[in-house]
Amino acid sequence: MTVELLECHSRVLRGNPLGDPTLRRTPVYLPPSYPRRQYPVYYLLSGFTGFGELLIQRGAWSESLPERLDRLIATRRMSEAIVVMPDCFTRYGGSQYLNSTATGRYEDHLVRELVPHIDRNYRTNGRRAVLGKSSGGYGALVLGMRHPRIFHALACHSGDMYFEYCYLPDFPKAIDQLRKHGGLKQFIRAWEKEPKRLAGDLHAAINTVAMASCYSPRGREIDLPFDLKTGEIRKAIWRRWKSWDPVELLDRHAKDLKGLNGVFLDCGTRDQFALHHGARIFASKARRLGVRLTFEEFDDDHSSISYRYDRSFAFLSRYL
Amino acid sequence: MTVELLECHSRVLRGNPLGDPTLRRTPVYLPPSYPRRQYPVYYLLSGFTGFGELLIQRGAWSESLPERLDRLIATRRMSEAIVVMPDCFTRYGGSQYLNSTATGRYEDHLVRELVPHIDRNYRTNGRRAVLGKSSGGYGALVLGMRHPRIFHALACHSGDMYFEYCYLPDFPKAIDQLRKHGGLKQFIRAWEKEPKRLAGDLHAAINTVAMASCYSPRGREIDLPFDLKTGEIRKAIWRRWKSWDPVELLDRHAKDLKGLNGVFLDCGTRDQFALHHGARIFASKARRLGVRLTFEEFDDDHSSISYRYDRSFAFLSRYL
Amino acid sequence: MTVELLECHSRVLRGNPLGDPTLRRTPVYLPPSYPRRQYPVYYLLSGFTGFGELLIQRGAWSESLPERLDRLIATRRMSEAIVVMPDCFTRYGGSQYLNSTATGRYEDHLVRELVPHIDRNYRTNGRRAVLGKSSGGYGALVLGMRHPRIFHALACHSGDMYFEYCYLPDFPKAIDQLRKHGGLKQFIRAWEKEPKRLAGDLHAAINTVAMASCYSPRGREIDLPFDLKTGEIRKAIWRRWKSWDPVELLDRHAKDLKGLNGVFLDCGTRDQFALHHGARIFASKARRLGVRLTFEEFDDDHSSISYRYDRSFAFLSRYL
Amino acid sequence: MTVELLECHSRVLRGNPLGDPTLRRTPVYLPPSYPRRQYPVYYLLSGFTGFGELLIQRGAWSESLPERLDRLIATRRMSEAIVVMPDCFTRYGGSQYLNSTATGRYEDHLVRELVPHIDRNYRTNGRRAVLGKSSGGYGALVLGMRHPRIFHALACHSGDMYFEYCYLPDFPKAIDQLRKHGGLKQFIRAWEKEPKRLAGDLHAAINTVAMASCYSPRGREIDLPFDLKTGEIRKAIWRRWKSWDPVELLDRHAKDLKGLNGVFLDCGTRDQFALHHGARIFASKARRLGVRLTFEEFDDDHSSISYRYDRSFAFLSRYL
Repeated sequence: MTVELLECHSRVLRGNPLGDPTLRRTPVYLPPSYPRRQYPVYYLLSGFTGFGELLIQRGAWSESLPERLDRLIATRRMSEAIVVMPDCFTRYGGSQYLNSTATGRYEDHLVRELVPHIDRNYRTNGRRAVLGKSSGGYGALVLGMRHPRIFHALACHSGDMYFEYCYLPDFPKAIDQLRKHGGLKQFIRAWEKEPKRLAGDLHAAINTVAMASCYSPRGREIDLPFDLKTGEIRKAIWRRWKSWDPVELLDRHAKDLKGLNGVFLDCGTRDQFALHHGARIFASKARRLGVRLTFEEFDDDHSSISYRYDRSFAFLSRYL
Repeated sequence: MTVELLECHSRVLRGNPLGDPTLRRTPVYLPPSYPRRQYPVYYLLSGFTGFGELLIQRGAWSESLPERLDRLIATRRMSEAIVVMPDCFTRYGGSQYLNSTATGRYEDHLVRELVPHIDRNYRTNGRRAVLGKSSGGYGALVLGMRHPRIFHALACHSGDMYFEYCYLPDFPKAIDQLRKHGGLKQFIRAWEKEPKRLAGDLHAAINTVAMASCYSPRGREIDLPFDLKTGEIRKAIWRRWKSWDPVELLDRHAKDLKGLNGVFLDCGTRDQFALHHGARIFASKARRLGVRLTFEEFDDDHSSISYRYDRSFAFLSRYL
Repeated sequence: MTVELLECHSRVLRGNPLGDPTLRRTPVYLPPSYPRRQYPVYYLLSGFTGFGELLIQRGAWSESLPERLDRLIATRRMSEAIVVMPDCFTRYGGSQYLNSTATGRYEDHLVRELVPHIDRNYRTNGRRAVLGKSSGGYGALVLGMRHPRIFHALACHSGDMYFEYCYLPDFPKAIDQLRKHGGLKQFIRAWEKEPKRLAGDLHAAINTVAMASCYSPRGREIDLPFDLKTGEIRKAIWRRWKSWDPVELLDRHAKDLKGLNGVFLDCGTRDQFALHHGARIFASKARRLGVRLTFEEFDDDHSSISYRYDRSFAFLSRYL
Repeated sequence: MTVELLECHSRVLRGNPLGDPTLRRTPVYLPPSYPRRQYPVYYLLSGFTGFGELLIQRGAWSESLPERLDRLIATRRMSEAIVVMPDCFTRYGGSQYLNSTATGRYEDHLVRELVPHIDRNYRTNGRRAVLGKSSGGYGALVLGMRHPRIFHALACHSGDMYFEYCYLPDFPKAIDQLRKHGGLKQFIRAWEKEPKRLAGDLHAAINTVAMASCYSPRGREIDLPFDLKTGEIRKAIWRRWKSWDPVELLDRHAKDLKGLNGVFLDCGTRDQFALHHGARIFASKARRLGVRLTFEEFDDDHSSISYRYDRSFAFLSRYL
């Protein structure tokens, strides 16, 4: 098994407003016969709080991603391919793979820096897919819609969508946490000092802050989608969020999606963040707009579902 | 201690679409000196799944409401008064004290039947307050706004408001339950057969159905605020719900609220249904509109907070 | 439907160490044909924090016990009978229907006062059963074993037994709570002042204190089954507890149980207090000792299982 | 920063009954000045389901262990040292660092193989400490007691002890799981096939099985501490478990503990597995037996407490 740990100094992330590192380490999986041929490339996007390096780690009883790929290739469930695991992590936990004045230009980093860099340095055949789970599924869907010339197929596992169900219910908890700390700045400062992370309602709070940093930046600052004093939703900000909801992006990008060779979407029917509803709404609207996609529901929740990659790699493999 | 159990055959509930009983049992608390004087009357509204009779029951370690009233009067925290505990229960768990073609005319029952009946049969002085907790707090606020000639003061404990936070997060769970049963009708049928109630997500489901029966009836039927197939929010139905949100009712009824002598609002800052945010939004908007009210936050959640009645009875007592 | 609310001044509870009332209100259900014949009597024991009066209250969507009895009799699932609902509540939440120097002589109250009183004042035929759920199931089993001449049959639903599983896991939480308050006395004092009850780990604490008041009294005081300073189990005290475990009482009372006409035992297989294990252990040991009993497991947990009374009344009815 | 990934073929693990790998990868942290001097060695033991490699991985927002060590050394909180992170993982999740006929000779692997190997291949000064968290804390305490000539100091964070509180409450859940699968063998088979791990009560079950594999092996098989049919505790097996409880090991090993230079013990006072009670009981008994130890309680629970290593490395550093 070969996994190279690519170290890239990103130009587009230089001077990013959060002071996050411009040096990014990106694991690159190379298939058994490499470099004898030219290969398609999969970009596998991590979920919130994740980054590429975590995907290659072994855990108790679980396959690492490279082990999974070796098995899928050995059993001919997928063809040989290069798999790239980008690092678009930010101090708030994730960039949603978007450009934002508050976090940095992560979409550009991926599409304009990393993709060309891979093509220049590895034996690629010009065929690409993008896939991921949770926030990584969101990224796959959005990058696929926005860059149909670059990616030829996508797979979105349990991706963030229909923000009314997946984000809005966190707002009351986020408000409670932010108020408890005395405001947004103080919350972030406390967050960064604390040794302990993501316990209890903190997840709702940091997730809301991170999403605001991606969906509703105001210059280098963040516009929260609610009034911290009363808790009321700020409608104009919320509309900005919603304009990044895949369900709304569909209005503008149905045609782009149709340009892709393969679109795969799935979600567990017991998803804790209600993402199965989002997936159904997306799939139904996409079909109404004439998009062909493969949509699967499975009997599980949002956690520990990396076994679904068996399904998506097999699917995507047919189109690359 | 005297509590009479008033049995009334309601005319306005005759032929109600759910077939709920027209005979309603309403406990009436009479103060120690009764009937030597004339007394103000408090209408105390139960929460969801409750009705008046439950309020007079004793529990382990807890005062019944009549015991509480005896104590408050004996210690001069409140003046002597008659306290009426209506029964506006429906097969779905509650009427929100509204008229609805899908459940019955509970607002009329209370305002047009019960109030005159009490005035005819008890020694009342023409002064009235309405109060309650949770759905009862909602009822108190809405009846106070809509009938400022009838009620002279109101108190709302942890009342349903800002539906985006208190109801919308239940929709995904409700959809899951309704789909699991095969649809709304089948869900209700199963619900009524089952010996076991309100476990797990069932509460979200029956609560959503009950609220729809109050806020979005369609003739004798119910319009759900979401598409059962995809889960998408039906915007027109949701707007009907929102038009019953106290925060929106304020637009039309600020003047009526100003006509009341006393308005009391409170909520625990750890309310499980996020109602403290609703209360803050309501209080802030009401004040902006020139309404005088007493708003208190307290350090507790939504459960077992009947001790807050000590506060509201004392408050209301000054205005009756 | 006739339910009399019997008010008894108990002699044996006079001067009880907790200052609990000696006046006890005991609902007595009388069957439709009463008093035309002579009837068997069922003693129905409440669970922890309960007492007879709570059993006759109506709730949302649920039958009260008298409604249930009317239905069972009308549909001939059981024969006509008198059903007595004793009040053996204490300030700590319950007496386990035992005599204790720390709480009072509740076993005597029931067996020596209430039973004769019922026989003197109602048309009884000398046949008696005892039944209950949870702590009431414990009481039924223990009273049946200790007084086989008085009771001719018993039914125990989800009764407390195999204390290693149902009580011991609460000890760490109870210790945390008691320490937090500064000791047993301070905990009880705070407990009695607080308006809010049984939230979170408080249930573990008050339940442990209550059980100690029944199983390990030291004069009017209580011996806790652990060292409050380190948390270590005090083996001698724990042995006193275990001597009241139905599984151990069997050693001394198998013969008494054999003397009963009918013994019914059941438990839900998802009981939160692991009582299904206790029930299996009891049933298996009882059978090994030659006791005939009917043991049923059902697919449910510890809550809202009053529908199981349909089963036990039907069972007991065959033996009275 | 230098971390070597030592690959060792273990002789003592050859032919281990679970077929677990004999090739073990052990990260070895080398301090900044290495190899200019000779250094003490810390053996850092992973918790249940963990192994050394996991400790060197980076996570979102958290220091990896090597980063932590660099910082502690740079800020002079500890002296330079070699830190070894053994892999004593088994198919059941962990070996408790004991020899067992059912799992393998992990104690021997660590003490007789790994320690000499490190001394032969690295520049060590003959001073050693052992430390860990949770099952790793257990291992540190037990290895320290059993090998006081090899280890000169130990630190135990939130270690498994007082089995009545930390293991016994899991038994009912474990029984439920094992029965659901049809028995121990079937449970293990299903466990190994399933892609999803440790959800819900499965943790209780696999943890119980794993502990039985360490504390009560029967040849290559496992004796469960309960009767699977009734759930009753098997007293003889339970006694075998208890003989491995650090609280009981103290009786035989107090003298050995006294031989160590430094003994550090701590636990969070909200530990989910009630280990703070175990720690108090151990500390109190140890002191009674004349053992000098540093015992600290801190306000946290069992999760994400790796910041406590700052404390233990600083402590141990004074004794090596």
